[in-house]
Amino acid sequence: MNVLLVYAHPEPRSLNGSIRDFTVDRFVRAGHTVEVSDLYAMRWKADLDAEDFPQRDAAQPFRPSGDSRRAFAEGTQTADVTAEQEKLRRADLVIFQFPLWWFSMPAIMKGWFDRVYAYGFAYGVGEHSEKRWGVRYGEGAFKGKRAMLVVTTGGWADHYSERGINGPIDDLLFPIQHGLLFYPGFDVLPPFLVFKTSAMNPARHDEILSALGARLDTAMQTTPIAYRSQNLGDYLIPALTLKPELSTDKTGFALHRSDEIATDPVVRDPSFVPANAGTKSAVMS
Amino acid sequence: MNVLLVYAHPEPRSLNGSIRDFTVDRFVRAGHTVEVSDLYAMRWKADLDAEDFPQRDAAQPFRPSGDSRRAFAEGTQTADVTAEQEKLRRADLVIFQFPLWWFSMPAIMKGWFDRVYAYGFAYGVGEHSEKRWGVRYGEGAFKGKRAMLVVTTGGWADHYSERGINGPIDDLLFPIQHGLLFYPGFDVLPPFLVFKTSAMNPARHDEILSALGARLDTAMQTTPIAYRSQNLGDYLIPALTLKPELSTDKTGFALHRSDEIATDPVVRDPSFVPANAGTKSAVMS
Repeated sequence: MNVLLVYAHPEPRSLNGSIRDFTVDRFVRAGHTVEVSDLYAMRWKADLDAEDFPQRDAAQPFRPSGDSRRAFAEGTQTADVTAEQEKLRRADLVIFQFPLWWFSMPAIMKGWFDRVYAYGFAYGVGEHSEKRWGVRYGEGAFKGKRAMLVVTTGGWADHYSERGINGPIDDLLFPIQHGLLFYPGFDVLPPFLVFKTSAMNPARHDEILSALGARLDTAMQTTPIAYRSQNLGDYLIPALTLKPELSTDKTGFALHRSDEIATDPVVRDPSFVPANAGTKSAVMS
Repeated sequence: MNVLLVYAHPEPRSLNGSIRDFTVDRFVRAGHTVEVSDLYAMRWKADLDAEDFPQRDAAQPFRPSGDSRRAFAEGTQTADVTAEQEKLRRADLVIFQFPLWWFSMPAIMKGWFDRVYAYGFAYGVGEHSEKRWGVRYGEGAFKGKRAMLVVTTGGWADHYSERGINGPIDDLLFPIQHGLLFYPGFDVLPPFLVFKTSAMNPARHDEILSALGARLDTAMQTTPIAYRSQNLGDYLIPALTLKPELSTDKTGFALHRSDEIATDPVVRDPSFVPANAGTKSAVMS
């Protein structure tokens, strides 16, 4: 199969760098084709702006959606954007790997989504009627493909637990997993999470890579997160609110899953972390 | 008072541009001092990388936190970063204005936080003991200052409502409001939200500015969101989980507020929006 790894860390000699190398090696050894978009190494342009649309009428106000729509339809996007779109089209599995910086992805990766996810490609697709509201949330350009986050955090697993002060990690990742991955049609696999990155040692490092390897090997068999499809009957259209009889016992983001949130016994086990290892750097990893 | 407006939109001749101009004018007319960080106009560098630390030892691996810590302590940060930190120090009220792109801020603004929020300034501050876990979440450099989001979305208010498919807007903004604003000590005001931006007309535009003006005029009197302070007794330390007896009827992010989520009758009123006005561009505004 074809794997795309979209990767954002500024330092190759880092935990993230070693995870990246391990991931590529694991897939290559298994006979798969791997492409890597190493955003820092590529010096990826993060900012969506009028320069992304060289054929646009410069006398008119720049409209992020409108100019994207036109450039995508007319084939006048910039070469860096079309190259990433082609990588997405080729991929069967896309892995997004990044350190959690301030409870989200580094700016350079957000800019990858802002620019590569064009109107007509990742959004603004399909009819809007009383029965359907575009082709999205369970349908879309990436239907049949799988996506998975690999995320490192400085903070402890406890701090990201159900009652942890940072908020549950599943909720923090919802805007990404549901809003950026499920939205254009990906099946979203449970994330691979590494907490407390400052408390690292060779034994723990090996355990993490071993657990990651098992996840990568089974990525095409793993049950995706059961987000609810928009156009298959669960939502009222056009309000797009979940029907009153569904998820009556849930609130917040959890409404939009028909499964219960799974806990991964390996990667979420705090025993991975030496109990006496502290860190003050909780928001950058 | 001193107001700082951190603003990210690529086109001045836009709804966001008119909201920005209105905001500056409103504060100036009231006798306040306003500074604007217009990130696109400044061509703000979005990517945190080794170039941000010109005095670092280039032979060593770049460590985002460690190099930030040292540069902040030694006064060797880049001039663009220190200028923004000075603006923050001067400000009594900081407004962050942006269009919601893919359920978060544009990359250029994420990169403002990634770079300006240095170790020793916005995080990594204070002792870690059995009684305190750093100076954060209710304490920190920005204690006594207020912050407020002004956010526009293409999507409808219904789609961001309690049971809307995008997830509740309060939850989508939690990583920003709680993780980026409350974390270093800001009092966080309820956000000012403009939904369904494509359905705009002069009357609605006037109504929005009028409602915004009322919010700006009362910004120093508005009751902040009642996020729970980390070190004042609500959380177990060092697990940083909310004590079992608190928020027993809540799940997810709502645990971390001691109030109920308020609905703003003006800015959230769907009557603001013509019922027959549709839009296909829901994720970019």
